[in-house]
Amino acid sequence: MNHHSVRGGDKRARILESALKVFASKGFYAAKVADVAAEAGVADGTIYLYFKSKDDLLISLFEEQMQQVNSQLTTALVGAISATDKLQRFFKAYLGMVETHRHATEIITIELRQSAKFMKDYANPRFAEFLKLLAGIIDEGQASGTFVSGTPPTVLARAIFGLLDELALMWVTTKGDKIDIRKAADWVGRLVLEGLERRSA
Amino acid sequence: MNHHSVRGGDKRARILESALKVFASKGFYAAKVADVAAEAGVADGTIYLYFKSKDDLLISLFEEQMQQVNSQLTTALVGAISATDKLQRFFKAYLGMVETHRHATEIITIELRQSAKFMKDYANPRFAEFLKLLAGIIDEGQASGTFVSGTPPTVLARAIFGLLDELALMWVTTKGDKIDIRKAADWVGRLVLEGLERRSA
Repeated sequence: MNHHSVRGGDKRARILESALKVFASKGFYAAKVADVAAEAGVADGTIYLYFKSKDDLLISLFEEQMQQVNSQLTTALVGAISATDKLQRFFKAYLGMVETHRHATEIITIELRQSAKFMKDYANPRFAEFLKLLAGIIDEGQASGTFVSGTPPTVLARAIFGLLDELALMWVTTKGDKIDIRKAADWVGRLVLEGLERRSA
Repeated sequence: MNHHSVRGGDKRARILESALKVFASKGFYAAKVADVAAEAGVADGTIYLYFKSKDDLLISLFEEQMQQVNSQLTTALVGAISATDKLQRFFKAYLGMVETHRHATEIITIELRQSAKFMKDYANPRFAEFLKLLAGIIDEGQASGTFVSGTPPTVLARAIFGLLDELALMWVTTKGDKIDIRKAADWVGRLVLEGLERRSA
């Protein structure tokens, strides 16, 4: 990276980008703030102008990643004609990102969970947005009569996130031959859709 | 606890039981081996006669818990007449344990993930047994024609675990009014079964 071409205003973004690389390769606990500073080409103290602590850096990184995830999911849904179509697009888009943003996937599925602060004390507004997007599709499908009613969309959304997240974790931690994550998106997409859809019989 | 009534041969079990309490209340990272020793009423050094490190203690604790989970799931399946029946029993038994073994649930869904050793370097034979049990039910349902074929049972088992695990995490981390986990077991059980079952149409 040519640090000379990056102006001061981009420092925060550069630090986050460096943290992503460092946390994904060294692991959150082993990584030091100094490693992130070295990767970003800034002094250690500069990091603390933007972030209070290593935990704060991790959480900010997650927020930025989740904002991108939510934004790409929202874009993927544009023009969808039904709840079924939306859910299929949601699955494909989410698991597609898992594959194309491997470092971010490692952060979300592994490193983030090592932060006690994140797991226990963080309200997590971006994850709430993600769940709201997913629950909205289910709600729409239930309202239109395409999906079976009676189960709260919020619980289904959380369960479906768990399913997607576990597939992402499996994919990212498999050494050697990985499953085709796009094929897996079709498989679990079918499982969930068949489970949600009202049967004509 | 009356330590005097516990003989030396039970020390390992007593240390694990104490670790469960201490890790669940203080969190894995904040907890010290000395805290576990105090809770168990043994000298700090005694812990190291049985366990190499705090990570090793956590992993041994998880192994013991998962062995109990697998054993109770196996028992719950005895006498089941179909793959559908087995899967319903599996869901009910698993989420029932989540509710009755709250500390163990906290260890499995939160604390365990804070161990980089566990997440990255541990082969996890007990979890493999759990997945094998679940994949076996799906395989049986596919073979008998009750469940749709074409999706590998191992991928479905992993996805279904993710779903159950996320519900457990949601339940254990909700402050205040929790959802009824047994009702949630019925909801997601229905979702998964409808998703797996072959449609007559």
